[in-house]
Amino acid sequence: MHRYRTHSCGALRASDIGQTVRLSGWCHRIRDHGGVLFIDLRDHFGITQVVADPDSPAFKAAEQVRAEWVVRIDGKVRPRPIGTVNAELATGEVEVFITELEVLGPAGELPLQVFGDQEYPEETRLRYRFLDLRRERLHRNIMLRGAVIDSLRNRMKSQGFFEFQTPILTASSPEGARDYLVPSRVHPGKFYALPQAPQQFKQLLMVAGFDRYFQIAPCFRDEDARADRSPGEFYQLDIEMSFVTQEDVFTAVEPVLKGVFEEFSDGKPVTQTFPKIRYADAIRTYGTDKPDLRNPIKMQSVADAFRESGFKVFARILADDPKADVWAIPAPGGGSRAFCDRMNGWAQDQGQPGLGYIFWREGAGAGPLANNVGPERTAMIAERLGLHEGDACFFVAGRPEKFYKFAGEARSRIGKDLGLIEENRFEFCWITDFPMYEWNEDEKKIDFSHNPFSMPNFEHDAFMALDPADQDTILSITAFQYDIVCNGVELSSGAIRNHRPDVMKKAFAIAGYGEETIIEKFGGMYRAFQYGAPPHGGIAPGVDRIVMLLAGESNLREVVLFPMNQRCEDLLMGAPSSVTAKQLRELHIRLNLPGA
Amino acid sequence: MHRYRTHSCGALRASDIGQTVRLSGWCHRIRDHGGVLFIDLRDHFGITQVVADPDSPAFKAAEQVRAEWVVRIDGKVRPRPIGTVNAELATGEVEVFITELEVLGPAGELPLQVFGDQEYPEETRLRYRFLDLRRERLHRNIMLRGAVIDSLRNRMKSQGFFEFQTPILTASSPEGARDYLVPSRVHPGKFYALPQAPQQFKQLLMVAGFDRYFQIAPCFRDEDARADRSPGEFYQLDIEMSFVTQEDVFTAVEPVLKGVFEEFSDGKPVTQTFPKIRYADAIRTYGTDKPDLRNPIKMQSVADAFRESGFKVFARILADDPKADVWAIPAPGGGSRAFCDRMNGWAQDQGQPGLGYIFWREGAGAGPLANNVGPERTAMIAERLGLHEGDACFFVAGRPEKFYKFAGEARSRIGKDLGLIEENRFEFCWITDFPMYEWNEDEKKIDFSHNPFSMPNFEHDAFMALDPADQDTILSITAFQYDIVCNGVELSSGAIRNHRPDVMKKAFAIAGYGEETIIEKFGGMYRAFQYGAPPHGGIAPGVDRIVMLLAGESNLREVVLFPMNQRCEDLLMGAPSSVTAKQLRELHIRLNLPGA
Repeated sequence: MHRYRTHSCGALRASDIGQTVRLSGWCHRIRDHGGVLFIDLRDHFGITQVVADPDSPAFKAAEQVRAEWVVRIDGKVRPRPIGTVNAELATGEVEVFITELEVLGPAGELPLQVFGDQEYPEETRLRYRFLDLRRERLHRNIMLRGAVIDSLRNRMKSQGFFEFQTPILTASSPEGARDYLVPSRVHPGKFYALPQAPQQFKQLLMVAGFDRYFQIAPCFRDEDARADRSPGEFYQLDIEMSFVTQEDVFTAVEPVLKGVFEEFSDGKPVTQTFPKIRYADAIRTYGTDKPDLRNPIKMQSVADAFRESGFKVFARILADDPKADVWAIPAPGGGSRAFCDRMNGWAQDQGQPGLGYIFWREGAGAGPLANNVGPERTAMIAERLGLHEGDACFFVAGRPEKFYKFAGEARSRIGKDLGLIEENRFEFCWITDFPMYEWNEDEKKIDFSHNPFSMPNFEHDAFMALDPADQDTILSITAFQYDIVCNGVELSSGAIRNHRPDVMKKAFAIAGYGEETIIEKFGGMYRAFQYGAPPHGGIAPGVDRIVMLLAGESNLREVVLFPMNQRCEDLLMGAPSSVTAKQLRELHIRLNLPGA
Repeated sequence: MHRYRTHSCGALRASDIGQTVRLSGWCHRIRDHGGVLFIDLRDHFGITQVVADPDSPAFKAAEQVRAEWVVRIDGKVRPRPIGTVNAELATGEVEVFITELEVLGPAGELPLQVFGDQEYPEETRLRYRFLDLRRERLHRNIMLRGAVIDSLRNRMKSQGFFEFQTPILTASSPEGARDYLVPSRVHPGKFYALPQAPQQFKQLLMVAGFDRYFQIAPCFRDEDARADRSPGEFYQLDIEMSFVTQEDVFTAVEPVLKGVFEEFSDGKPVTQTFPKIRYADAIRTYGTDKPDLRNPIKMQSVADAFRESGFKVFARILADDPKADVWAIPAPGGGSRAFCDRMNGWAQDQGQPGLGYIFWREGAGAGPLANNVGPERTAMIAERLGLHEGDACFFVAGRPEKFYKFAGEARSRIGKDLGLIEENRFEFCWITDFPMYEWNEDEKKIDFSHNPFSMPNFEHDAFMALDPADQDTILSITAFQYDIVCNGVELSSGAIRNHRPDVMKKAFAIAGYGEETIIEKFGGMYRAFQYGAPPHGGIAPGVDRIVMLLAGESNLREVVLFPMNQRCEDLLMGAPSSVTAKQLRELHIRLNLPGA
């Protein structure tokens, strides 16, 4: 007989009745029913009820054990008495009568109960993470995480990708966040950086001819924590491909994401063909480049309905500024004064002057705005937006670049308040054609809009000939850059990279930067591009976020084994911590404490 | 037609003749044969010969390209002329006549040729790693690495293990090497450490009830570089299991290693059942705990042959010191004075007084030592060791703990010099029963011998009752600790862990340490053990070393994508590097430069 177990705690069935078995596990729950002890013995694989009564030679030992003690028991499998079969448990038809019990690992007073649903403060949960991880929810989330990663990996491999490991001790990467630094012992005064992403390395792999790269890659950003951003480290499904267009990246990645979501979505529907939405259209329609498509509301311009209308506020805005617009946010089912006033109040809470609206009842538009513009224009709006009795519509006016974010938030708010969002589905979309440049109002100059290293979507010779003073053309240039969004969560940006040193120099010159800026930010890559670089592109969906969506959690800490708290502390291991003077000396650094 | 390719450069066959195709790749080799240009176009998947003659509309463009330019060509697949078929190339029956050529990525003067076998200095290879990685050997090694890791992962999963990601930004781990430290921005004066191994985390996972853990885990040690140790980071197949004995670990790990070696050994034989050799026996037989079993030489004690013999040096050593011994190192086929004298000279180079020997010729032992001990004892030695005419035997005398290392080196030397080592095989063994404690001569006290956190192989109650003054008993205690060794390379240590706080306290007390030392070195773990810990154990074979063995390389840098050089520098990315005063300020540190 094995030293610790013949079966796991999830293995025994009615067919095992009569067998002598050995089990090991944690005492999940202990009940004393009239002198008979019932212990739910738990391990990773399940729970088995084990029983001792005063006739058992192990009764004395069994009386000693407490919750979460680790014990080994020997015993005989027997059927549970009629009426006590537990259909919810795989082992629920049987129990084991204990003949011998050995304590393998006793437990002290528990700061956090494993059994039951009691809630505990964040600090307790993180300090005793090993107990919290025994609980069903976290244990299941972590196992889901592993299964999702396995699935992502297998799907990538079956698409012809190879997995590589890129360095973790490296140089600063140009991702824009703060680096974690590692002082060098061998090189006084110099530092390694932990990668914010393996961006340069994956591009170097393409230059080295590896063709199809992926990695479940740890990434590090010294940023303040948020629910959807782990402090310290996170993982991304890092992807890069050579000799591809943007469409090829979509074709490779879409089935991987669709597949993994369908595999783990528990029957929730997943977008079958991911819509591609141009960045400008996403802003115009959803007020965001991360639209939650479970929300059916689509905004549109209704400037013509307000131009020279009786609603003087909007009419004046449109008359005074040729770049002004009025957007309508339809609210199907929101056609009550109470709802409209509530939205108006919410807008004021957001620092807006208010939120104009029309609502429809008894076949006509109602509310002050409707009265001002008159029934004809009100009807036109209703028709344009497909609104009817019982519906409402809200309006924002001004320059779209100033109000689009607020409009997008109003759209979300309306969708949620009216229950328009179908929670139980996963709605994906690609956002494409991000602008290459934008106007930097502070510095009164053209600047990069998103990623300076994406390939502009512009004919090569024409791009090289661009006059930096031709701002209208320059601001109209889009890049081969894209985002993948699920349920309003941005899983990743990606791009076809700019692999041509000449185009890169020109792109930087347009934004007023010299070659030295490229070398400073992207030296390893840029030098490599001088020696035969293939066209390439990629993307890097966030693994933690994918697992969070699939687990139905709203905080990344629920899908990470040993997360840090919001203050970037590991309460279990006691990190960060003080180090010795000798260590500091060896690393050629001294502390520089506030107030010291 | 796809923007870049209809086929990879490894795809075309005779059956494609007549097709119009598009290929993209690097110009591997360019030859001009009487005005006809032959370009070997290379990508990750293979090489295709593409051709332009002055009749081709693409001839002018083709004339411009140089080695390692990235180009796209369109053209027609045609058979190679009779007599020019290249049987060594998968595409060797065909060539593509170029009708159009587009330069996708030109290349400047190459600091390192991709084509051919020219050798380059280390520094050039690392600085232009992206070029070196295009070369066949490194490209193949890196792809082998990926395949080995896939195989390890799949084999672990099929053994019922689950993969987890443990933190990289964490607290110092008690592995004994120097930590890499990361200053905290949020907590002035405090530091994270990069894990030397996820030792505590994997044990915490067992305490959290996950039962079977593995991870292809990045590990970090700030140590000086060696050929068999990467500076900075390395990967291990980190493994931990609950409710297991040492035998279970062997049973789980052995098929994984055997399987992966058989899969990638290119037909070289692999040990079918790994022998288990007790540590003490390994020292006695091989003079090392990392024996290369491809070397058939086994040493043994022959003290009785020398006791009170005519060879006064050995006789006196044995008479004067009851702990002294004489070991014989047989050298089959080494039976010539020339060889024996060469070995003797080598021993003197190693700082030894010499190396006594006997060699056998014409049926009798020869050499000064044989003359001194006489024919009877000489014959006894020959018989004991199975030596015959043409063989030799070397002898070392004294206290084994002083000479065993030298004896082991002599054994290796003899094996190599006499060609006894069968290079083309993989010989595995387990080394077991490491001593728990050893005598620390400097401090005149009992100390831990290897890993203080392994479970002693000693009955629980007897261990708890041990008298620290009973040194003989204490020094005889072994631990459930083991190594896995392949061809003399230690792939990993492992152990059944000490999961009992009471036993751990006693184990530390024996070595003169209090509980505070446990808490300091192993706090997270030790606290967790108070709340129900299962018996558990594991191991962590080095992934880079496994790949190195399988690739037939002798330096880890040949199996790592972007390694640092011996001075811990990443020459490609320029790490480590200076950082800004602002970064230092944010991290609450100042430089403390030598001489400043």
